[in-house]
Amino acid sequence: MKIEDIRDPSFLKQMNEEECRELAEEIRSFLISSLSKTGGHIASNLGVVELTIALHKIFNAPEDKILFDVGHQSYVHKILTGRAKDFPTLRQFGGLSGFQKRKESVYDCFEAGHSSTALSSALGMAIARDLNHENYQVIAVVGDGALNTGLSLEALNEIGDEKKKLIIIFNDNNMSISRNVGALTRSFAKLRNSTSYNSLKDNVKSALRNVKNGTAIIQSIHNFKDSIKRSVVDSGIFREFDIDYIGPVDGHDIPQLLKAFEVARKKEGPCVVHCVTTKGKGYRYAEEDITGKWHGVSRFDIASGKLLNEVPEGYASYSAIVADTVFELMKDNKDIVAITPAMITGSHLGRVFAEYPDRAFDCGIAEGHAVSFAAGLSLSGKHPFLSIYSSFLQRGYDQLSQDLCRMDLPCIIGVDRAGLVGEDGETHHGVFDIAYGRSLPNMIIAQGKDSREIQNLLYTASHTKHPFMIRYPKGNARFEKVSHFEEIPVGKWEICVNNVDEEAIIITYGEDVGKIEELISENNLPYTLVNARYLKPVDEDMLEEIFHRNKPVYVYTADILKGGLGDEILEFMNRKGIMTNITVFGIDDIFVSQGSNLQLKESLRIDIRSFLQRIEEDRRKTC
Amino acid sequence: MKIEDIRDPSFLKQMNEEECRELAEEIRSFLISSLSKTGGHIASNLGVVELTIALHKIFNAPEDKILFDVGHQSYVHKILTGRAKDFPTLRQFGGLSGFQKRKESVYDCFEAGHSSTALSSALGMAIARDLNHENYQVIAVVGDGALNTGLSLEALNEIGDEKKKLIIIFNDNNMSISRNVGALTRSFAKLRNSTSYNSLKDNVKSALRNVKNGTAIIQSIHNFKDSIKRSVVDSGIFREFDIDYIGPVDGHDIPQLLKAFEVARKKEGPCVVHCVTTKGKGYRYAEEDITGKWHGVSRFDIASGKLLNEVPEGYASYSAIVADTVFELMKDNKDIVAITPAMITGSHLGRVFAEYPDRAFDCGIAEGHAVSFAAGLSLSGKHPFLSIYSSFLQRGYDQLSQDLCRMDLPCIIGVDRAGLVGEDGETHHGVFDIAYGRSLPNMIIAQGKDSREIQNLLYTASHTKHPFMIRYPKGNARFEKVSHFEEIPVGKWEICVNNVDEEAIIITYGEDVGKIEELISENNLPYTLVNARYLKPVDEDMLEEIFHRNKPVYVYTADILKGGLGDEILEFMNRKGIMTNITVFGIDDIFVSQGSNLQLKESLRIDIRSFLQRIEEDRRKTC
Repeated sequence: MKIEDIRDPSFLKQMNEEECRELAEEIRSFLISSLSKTGGHIASNLGVVELTIALHKIFNAPEDKILFDVGHQSYVHKILTGRAKDFPTLRQFGGLSGFQKRKESVYDCFEAGHSSTALSSALGMAIARDLNHENYQVIAVVGDGALNTGLSLEALNEIGDEKKKLIIIFNDNNMSISRNVGALTRSFAKLRNSTSYNSLKDNVKSALRNVKNGTAIIQSIHNFKDSIKRSVVDSGIFREFDIDYIGPVDGHDIPQLLKAFEVARKKEGPCVVHCVTTKGKGYRYAEEDITGKWHGVSRFDIASGKLLNEVPEGYASYSAIVADTVFELMKDNKDIVAITPAMITGSHLGRVFAEYPDRAFDCGIAEGHAVSFAAGLSLSGKHPFLSIYSSFLQRGYDQLSQDLCRMDLPCIIGVDRAGLVGEDGETHHGVFDIAYGRSLPNMIIAQGKDSREIQNLLYTASHTKHPFMIRYPKGNARFEKVSHFEEIPVGKWEICVNNVDEEAIIITYGEDVGKIEELISENNLPYTLVNARYLKPVDEDMLEEIFHRNKPVYVYTADILKGGLGDEILEFMNRKGIMTNITVFGIDDIFVSQGSNLQLKESLRIDIRSFLQRIEEDRRKTC
Repeated sequence: MKIEDIRDPSFLKQMNEEECRELAEEIRSFLISSLSKTGGHIASNLGVVELTIALHKIFNAPEDKILFDVGHQSYVHKILTGRAKDFPTLRQFGGLSGFQKRKESVYDCFEAGHSSTALSSALGMAIARDLNHENYQVIAVVGDGALNTGLSLEALNEIGDEKKKLIIIFNDNNMSISRNVGALTRSFAKLRNSTSYNSLKDNVKSALRNVKNGTAIIQSIHNFKDSIKRSVVDSGIFREFDIDYIGPVDGHDIPQLLKAFEVARKKEGPCVVHCVTTKGKGYRYAEEDITGKWHGVSRFDIASGKLLNEVPEGYASYSAIVADTVFELMKDNKDIVAITPAMITGSHLGRVFAEYPDRAFDCGIAEGHAVSFAAGLSLSGKHPFLSIYSSFLQRGYDQLSQDLCRMDLPCIIGVDRAGLVGEDGETHHGVFDIAYGRSLPNMIIAQGKDSREIQNLLYTASHTKHPFMIRYPKGNARFEKVSHFEEIPVGKWEICVNNVDEEAIIITYGEDVGKIEELISENNLPYTLVNARYLKPVDEDMLEEIFHRNKPVYVYTADILKGGLGDEILEFMNRKGIMTNITVFGIDDIFVSQGSNLQLKESLRIDIRSFLQRIEEDRRKTC
């Protein structure tokens, strides 16, 4: 069968186990081949090939609702629901999403991108179904990393209480992006290695059903079985939540999966099917990876496992630049400790963890806890460096406010993946953190224009006794290591281009400073350029001076407009009685889709070229 | 001993058990008497009298760090650390805080106000201690409601992994504010009723220590004991987190508590001491309450248990007005479902839960889950009404953004306790939700000026297919039930006073509309008054018209300035090229303390009188 020809999963019903196995191998080859050309979340999808086939064989989507937590492991589901042909456009502008997407297919009943929401939403769906007297199945596929998370545990707590029919497929590969941490991980491991009682029980039941009076016999031994179960099978944490447990089953063994899902399908209340899988299954490099390098990849060479967009010589990712700086700062200041929620690899903190194992903490996917944990360290005289992706930091918003800002505690918050993040799209763009951070009293927010400024901002933050967000984007920059750190006074901006014949003043921040500076210089544009490296507090003296010049002011941002730097400047102008208008570029009250950052900006008409064009047009108009 | 004479807890060391018991009774009488005059969190504090005495007897604060989760149960701790004399000022402007407060005492090492942060912070403190080679104890007191919460479970996950010395006092009264919900609650109940093996074990150990070779014997039977323990004691969920468990102990039995804490004190790693307590212990009305009425109270009559600030005739709390309206809407629209995170009583949803048990859900203290759960219901065609206090909604910020706004799902978000909330202070003021909500695409934000408008806004929201925040404050309003609902077009403001000779235009929202309207009418002030009942989207047509009038514009808000309505209007002006300045009143980038709302506003000079005075002064200047 040609994978691209699959229209919907109905063909699976007729397939026997052997054919399913063959299909699994074909899908695996397709995934490896296709993702080697586009990049994508390869390892998690290779791990759920059999599991997804078995799901679509036993259940009847789209009537039955299948929710993939996070959603980056839904590629096989996409293939089986007729989207294989779109894989060449995966994660590209206008192309196939890397997550479940309702607009894309009726088989996508749910959307996510951040971990651990599927159980809560699945419960909502199950309750809605029962209220509507409908009769479909609700199935949530959740990884063990996500099941460690508070949000999932809160959902289990209500699922065990509501007792609605709901199936949780526990995809246990002992990894989230990289190796899982936390005590529950050990509890899961015990479970993973425990006797598989339920499939056994199912065999007995199936056998009995075909026997005369079998149902009565099943009924009569019910209590007895329960007591056996308690002594034979450890259902671990699920017992505490009063949720039925089936497993563990080998998540790559289709007959086992089919049997387990069939049992789950017939259960009355909520149940967990524990599937033990191997992340990256079937592709050696991904299978052997425990660091998370193969979690989400760029294009790669299949034979050698070599990633094809290595960082150019002299460059480093922003995350790496920050991690390297933190490493240096930790040498001199033993009070600095590093914290990451399950992002050691993504945040390039490997060396920090290796060198300072006692001062580096992986909290798992638990951003809220990570922030309160940092607060505790800070209350006891430590200076935490907390590295979190901008869009995931949203999970810790209340703790940022209540714990760090309200108590005004020293803490460096490394806001990674700030701004647009390209292919991960809607759920991952880090464009809200200025808006929500700026309204928090005591918070400082900064963004460096290049590697040198980033290093000096981190140094400054490590000497500042307040919560201090430092934003840095996805991507690479030329890495010039400073020979000695210099403090950048909090709230001080700099003029990068001071044009004596200026006809406009441009205010921007981050790497756009350099990009605009280059264009000004290349094209000899008569503009002054200001690096607003502190988003909060802003440099009021410099603003005062700028507006004194009586030239048109343009603010360029690629973050959300509402609540952003533009608002801060407008507030300042209003307070000071400065009566003029400014032009602010930014994202206008929409969630931005996926694509390269340039494509996205162009589609929103907030790319730098459009920005400079706008200034040019305004100049022409006033001439 | 006179309770007010207590200076510090050192006197406890000399006390025998009988004296401790007497002290407990004296403290209990003091609490009942004092709180009957000031109001406060009576029930939770009556429940921890013996527990707190035992803590301060066994441990050595302030060297040892005692963290009270949430902190509203720290009154006994305040009394024992020399603050009884300040109780007449409890929760008042400039007075004693109702929570732990570092500025108040060296015995307060931690601050909270929102549930479930103590375990994370305690772990941070324990790690900092070990890094500093210090040697104190870290003790976190956590209720069972808070232990149900994702944030606490995330902390347990890391605590069980880090294995640092850390004591968790599990204050189990089977209540959070009202009766607890969730499957874990049943798991805790099993535990509560299980055999107390550990105190038994401790007895054996103590006995052996006094015997020759005792330590060796303890060592040698270690493994054996562990296996006994597994079969005798169910340590419930704590086993899954690999955390030692001591208990259950009677939380009102001082000898039992002392023994258990002594065992905990000597343990190497993290351990939980399970103390079963009775919320409201010793004061009949509070003890018998299961609805949460006695959780936090106003002044009351001790003998009759009658609360002294009953709602006046014809008035109702805003929460009650909203709940009543939701009740009415649920009659006609079977797709409306109601959700609250542990706030049935606070949100006055009792009648909704009684009448529509299948369509009303208490999620426990789990705001993040509550929002994702609502999203699931909404995805399946339901229209959830999600009632959450403004400051607690911060816990669900990421889910608001990712689940409700990004998918643009119909959901009414009842933002209770919006704006200043008086005596609860810093942690509870609901002044940030406009700022963080306004930057979220697809979000609608509204606030009604009175009961009629609130009812019509709720009706409008129930017919609007977007996420729709409706804010309403703490306090009471005259409740006029509308005879039939009227839709208020989204984004339409109204002019409440259209003064032909206007010398200023005032824009405000919520109950301040009525207050200012009254003052305009009473004093015959030449002002036009606009009710900005939609904070997002704002009424651009009306704004255009207003600025066309060429009169000074004043915006009155009692929420945080940065990101608030002022910013929205400034953005509009800038976009439209309107060159004028406006005067915006609001909270200027600080966390506001406790006191009556009027005291707080006066101290910030944002009370309505100051506002009107400012307009008057401006008028005089321009004359």
